Amino acid sequence: MKYRDFVDLTYKPSEDDVVCDFSVETYDEGITKMAGGVAAESSIGTWTELATMKVYVKKLHAVVFDISGNSVRIAYPIELFELGNMPNVLSSVAGNVFGLKDLKNLRLNDVHMPEEMITSFKGPKYGITGVRKLVNVYHRPLIGTIIKPKLGLNSKDHAEVAFNAWVGGCDIVKDDENLSSQRFNPFDDRVVKTLEYRDRAEEQTGEKKIYIPNVTSETNEMVKRAQFVVDQGGEYVMIDILTCGFSALQTLRDQDLDIILHAHRAGHAAFTKNPRHGIAMRVIAKLSRIVGVDQLHVGAAVGKMLETKEEVLMNCKALRGKMSGLKRVMPVASGGLHPGLVPSLVDIFGVDFVIQAGGGIHGHKHGTVAGAKAMRQAVDATVEHIELEEYATTHSELRSALETWKYTS
Amino acid sequence: MKYRDFVDLTYKPSEDDVVCDFSVETYDEGITKMAGGVAAESSIGTWTELATMKVYVKKLHAVVFDISGNSVRIAYPIELFELGNMPNVLSSVAGNVFGLKDLKNLRLNDVHMPEEMITSFKGPKYGITGVRKLVNVYHRPLIGTIIKPKLGLNSKDHAEVAFNAWVGGCDIVKDDENLSSQRFNPFDDRVVKTLEYRDRAEEQTGEKKIYIPNVTSETNEMVKRAQFVVDQGGEYVMIDILTCGFSALQTLRDQDLDIILHAHRAGHAAFTKNPRHGIAMRVIAKLSRIVGVDQLHVGAAVGKMLETKEEVLMNCKALRGKMSGLKRVMPVASGGLHPGLVPSLVDIFGVDFVIQAGGGIHGHKHGTVAGAKAMRQAVDATVEHIELEEYATTHSELRSALETWKYTS
Repeated sequence: MKYRDFVDLTYKPSEDDVVCDFSVETYDEGITKMAGGVAAESSIGTWTELATMKVYVKKLHAVVFDISGNSVRIAYPIELFELGNMPNVLSSVAGNVFGLKDLKNLRLNDVHMPEEMITSFKGPKYGITGVRKLVNVYHRPLIGTIIKPKLGLNSKDHAEVAFNAWVGGCDIVKDDENLSSQRFNPFDDRVVKTLEYRDRAEEQTGEKKIYIPNVTSETNEMVKRAQFVVDQGGEYVMIDILTCGFSALQTLRDQDLDIILHAHRAGHAAFTKNPRHGIAMRVIAKLSRIVGVDQLHVGAAVGKMLETKEEVLMNCKALRGKMSGLKRVMPVASGGLHPGLVPSLVDIFGVDFVIQAGGGIHGHKHGTVAGAKAMRQAVDATVEHIELEEYATTHSELRSALETWKYTS
Repeated sequence: MKYRDFVDLTYKPSEDDVVCDFSVETYDEGITKMAGGVAAESSIGTWTELATMKVYVKKLHAVVFDISGNSVRIAYPIELFELGNMPNVLSSVAGNVFGLKDLKNLRLNDVHMPEEMITSFKGPKYGITGVRKLVNVYHRPLIGTIIKPKLGLNSKDHAEVAFNAWVGGCDIVKDDENLSSQRFNPFDDRVVKTLEYRDRAEEQTGEKKIYIPNVTSETNEMVKRAQFVVDQGGEYVMIDILTCGFSALQTLRDQDLDIILHAHRAGHAAFTKNPRHGIAMRVIAKLSRIVGVDQLHVGAAVGKMLETKEEVLMNCKALRGKMSGLKRVMPVASGGLHPGLVPSLVDIFGVDFVIQAGGGIHGHKHGTVAGAKAMRQAVDATVEHIELEEYATTHSELRSALETWKYTS
């Protein structure tokens, strides 16, 4: 079969097909031929005719069924894939194709999976409903912080910073993406100490408080760490899903532990940043939801990270839209956030999300407690439809924050 | 600490530092400030001053010690990392930094790890020496093929294609990167049947023959599949290291099975293709070697994939150069290869590599046996310093191949 044999613009995808939306840019070759090349290389074809091709194999070929400018849609028969095996799916639709010499750029913009494939994975165990039930907060965004400095604090200082954030008004405190079990702050010790301070913060505030330790590591060690968190009375863990990888994420989810999975996406921008090449974040969001995370970082559209509002909304839709009965996943906004950005964030995200601020809380000039208070005040004001400047006249922590950080986009 | 506090051009990295070579492109901000930003965000810093910063934490900060045009070198104290945890290393040096809004592009070109970090991982169990000993071929490149069509053959036809490749002269037959355990060709059945044909091919040829089944899947299933291969008398497995991820790769290596690990890099070009952004393949090559693969795809510099000769040589150096006593890893050239390219390949790679051709063997007009013969003839001619055209006058399979595929770069 030649590349062009993988193109059939009269084909209508069936409900059982996997459909991928690509953007394809070629050098000298026509778009039709190279769209066929993408379909070939990601299914049963290769660059030359094969003596070993069989008639019964040909019926499994992927089909380019729509070409519109650089936008190319490809349908894959579900039989091409192993169900319940996310690395296998990625090795086909997001594998060798990115390296084809005749392609200038190739972007995987979206993936649509049939129900049979989606339900072959576990999906989120808790999702937004489970998270809200645990935290017992229903009508406002959740307020989270990351311990800062991100690395270097010893276990005791780490737990104290967490405590200050909780009593100031944060619901959630989490480790940063590159804290795992370094000598300066070993995992077990940190978990024990920080959960101890969590209990004290809950007593003092009468509110439910969450600690999310980062379990990122080799798979078995990661599962062991997650179990340790359960045993110590924790309800949440974080995994850096991309630096760990989808095999390990599936393994952790498959343990079916009584634990909420918070997914960090460290490293994503190496392949999501260029809108013309690589993989769109919304694809990662969908696949993560299907495997079964409960929360995922999706950008903020404001702050220090690069995504546009449009991209962030697509990520949110991938997490919160309807998908074969899967639970809805909580988006996490993070990266350079501070209280002055809350109205913009609520405008973009609605209320079902986590506002995750590190520097924007611990960088408050009166410290972490004041920083957490300022963020809680900003959230309270926003859901009550009061202007931050007005609310700040009677809330000094918010006033200080607004004076320190002025940008609102 | 501000971004600029992470720059000290008088600093000399110590032997214990991790050193990363980046290429940094900014929009409006100066290169010095944003180089500091990369060092900050990948170590202890963030975008704002912190009330929670401690004196004992500051000494852990990363240092930009060299800026030359867009090239930036950063040294990280080893204490920042958890030893033996590759996802953790990546979450720091190849994590959030790619997404910083003030950076136009960021490329991680190379990573240099201190011996203490390298030896905290297992490293290759077999390497080039172990592979050569098993295959019992010492003075020429190994000849491998991928079963084609890449997906769709049933187990029996798959095993027969493998048999034909072996008797034609291939040393190695492997599954393609997106074959795992689909309904049309379930893993266990395929392994049993193909190893049975391997035994027959060994009897018929008197040569050692290798089958590499692809175990890519969720971690525990992957380990189970690898163990199954050992139990059935196999000596090799393949893993798609990037779609599975580094946690799972570490887990598989940590089992210390008597099995050679062949690493496929499906998906790499999503982040390696643009030379100004993402991660260079040589970084992946180094990290894979440190974790402990024995063979790795590195591009071919000729054929259908995009890498330049310079890039391929850097990948090979990462695998075969000296590195804290680690075994040398066998590079695998693949992607659009055929017999006419062998002289160019040997010129680039030397003899310590695998020539992996799929279409260039099964696409031979007289079928797989003839295709494998043609490739073996091309290799024999090349190591004996005989021109292919001359050798082809007395070797008809090679002649046919040279007539079918004419490009030599």
